[in-house]
Amino acid sequence: MNDVSSKNLAEVRALAFDVFGTTVDWCAGVAREVRAVLGPKGHGLDWWAFAVRWRKEYQPAMEAVRSGGRGYVILDTLHREMLEPVLAEYGVDGLSAAEKQELAYAWRRLDPWPDVIAGMERLKKKYTLIALSNGNIALISAMAKRSGIPWDVVLGAELVKQYKPRGEVYDSAASLLSLENPQVMMVACHVWDLDGAKARGLRTGYVRRAAEYGPVPPPKLPAAGTYDLQVADFGELADALGA
Amino acid sequence: MNDVSSKNLAEVRALAFDVFGTTVDWCAGVAREVRAVLGPKGHGLDWWAFAVRWRKEYQPAMEAVRSGGRGYVILDTLHREMLEPVLAEYGVDGLSAAEKQELAYAWRRLDPWPDVIAGMERLKKKYTLIALSNGNIALISAMAKRSGIPWDVVLGAELVKQYKPRGEVYDSAASLLSLENPQVMMVACHVWDLDGAKARGLRTGYVRRAAEYGPVPPPKLPAAGTYDLQVADFGELADALGA
Repeated sequence: MNDVSSKNLAEVRALAFDVFGTTVDWCAGVAREVRAVLGPKGHGLDWWAFAVRWRKEYQPAMEAVRSGGRGYVILDTLHREMLEPVLAEYGVDGLSAAEKQELAYAWRRLDPWPDVIAGMERLKKKYTLIALSNGNIALISAMAKRSGIPWDVVLGAELVKQYKPRGEVYDSAASLLSLENPQVMMVACHVWDLDGAKARGLRTGYVRRAAEYGPVPPPKLPAAGTYDLQVADFGELADALGA
Repeated sequence: MNDVSSKNLAEVRALAFDVFGTTVDWCAGVAREVRAVLGPKGHGLDWWAFAVRWRKEYQPAMEAVRSGGRGYVILDTLHREMLEPVLAEYGVDGLSAAEKQELAYAWRRLDPWPDVIAGMERLKKKYTLIALSNGNIALISAMAKRSGIPWDVVLGAELVKQYKPRGEVYDSAASLLSLENPQVMMVACHVWDLDGAKARGLRTGYVRRAAEYGPVPPPKLPAAGTYDLQVADFGELADALGA
C-alpha cells in the first residue's frame, strides 16, 4: 500500500500538514498550560478532561463560519470564545481578561510529537513543507518558533478566510505554490480533514495519533486503501516517501 | 542613530525583509543563470547588462497592476513577460517556450548576500522573520529552499494581490501576525520600499547594497535619520537590534 514509486505519489512536490493533533500534542499541552495558570489559584481539576472539553467546542465554533452564519474570525479568537462555556461548566470564575487571554494562547504553546522534528528534517530535503492548519498564521508561526518546527511556508485557513474541510483551503495550498492539487499531499490524523483534501484531488497521508485525546480511546483506523498512505508517525512517512 | 533601546524599536517583534537586492544578489544571479542558458547556444552577451536591462522592466510591469490597468498577476508571470522585449533588443531569437520559462525562473535561483544567513540566524532568535517581497510565494519559497534562507513566514504581495509600495502589502504583514504596524520593521535597500512602509507606520531599516546593480554605480545614501536604522549588512542589523 505504501508504494511511493506509484505514479500518483511520484508527482508529489509538497506536503500540507494538519497541525493540532497531527503535528503537535494539543491534549497534553493544553492540560499542562491550563494547570500552570489555574493550579496556583487553587483549582484542582482533571486537566486532561478540561482540554478535551475545550476542544469539543472547536467544530461547532468553526461551523458557524463554514455555514455562513458569521464572518471569518481567526482561531485565536475562537479559542478565547470557546473558553467561556468551559470555565462556566467547571465553575472557574474571577479570572482577569489577561488571564483568560493567557489561557487562550495555551494553543500557541504546544509541543510536537517526539517523531515530528526529525521526520520533517528528512522530508524537508525533498518536499516543500506547508503548515495547512485551521490555526491563524500568528498562532502557527508562534508555535513553530517556540519548538523549532521547520515549515517552509505557513498557509492555511486565514488566507482564504474559511475553515477546513471547506475545499478552498486545500485548493489554496497548491495554488499559492504554483502546483496542481495532485502534487500536494495532505498529511493528517483526522479522516474529516483527509476526506476534504481527497475530494479536491490532493493526495492523502493518514498518520495514526492514538494518544491525541489523552485518556480518551483513539478512533477506529480507516480501512486499508482509503488514503494513499497510512503511517504510524512522521519517520514512517519519510520512509514511505523515500525522503 | 542606531539606538535600539529607544522606545520605538524596543516594541518591534517582527522584521519584514525585502528580497530582491536586499536579501539576494539578483544581478549576479540572473547574469549567471542567463549565461548558463544562452552561453552554450553561442550568444556572447554582456550578461550583467542583460540582467540590469531585464530588471528595468520591473517597475513598469508592476505599475500596470498598481494603477488598476490590469488585474494582479504573480511576479513569475511578469518576469516571463518582461523577458520578451529584452530578448528582442539583444537579438536573441529561436528559444523554445521551455527555454524561456527556464530563463524566467532564473529569478528563483538567486543567492543571498554573504552576510545574510548568519545575520538572519541571529535575528531569528529574537524576531519573527517575514519575507515581504513582491515575489509570489512559490518563487520566494523555492529560492529560500535552494539556499537555506530561514524565513519564519513567507507573506508578501500575492496575499493582497497588490504590489509594494501599495500600503496594503505593508499592512498585511502586521495584520497576519496579529501585530500593530509599529511592531514590524521593514528592512530594505530601496528607499521607495522603506518610504512606503514608513507611510504606513512601520519601523524602517535601510541596508546598503552598493553592489546591487553590479557594475552600475550605487544610488546615493539616504540622509542620516531618514529611517530608524541605517546599516551596512544583516550582521550590523543584528548588532543594532541587540540580536
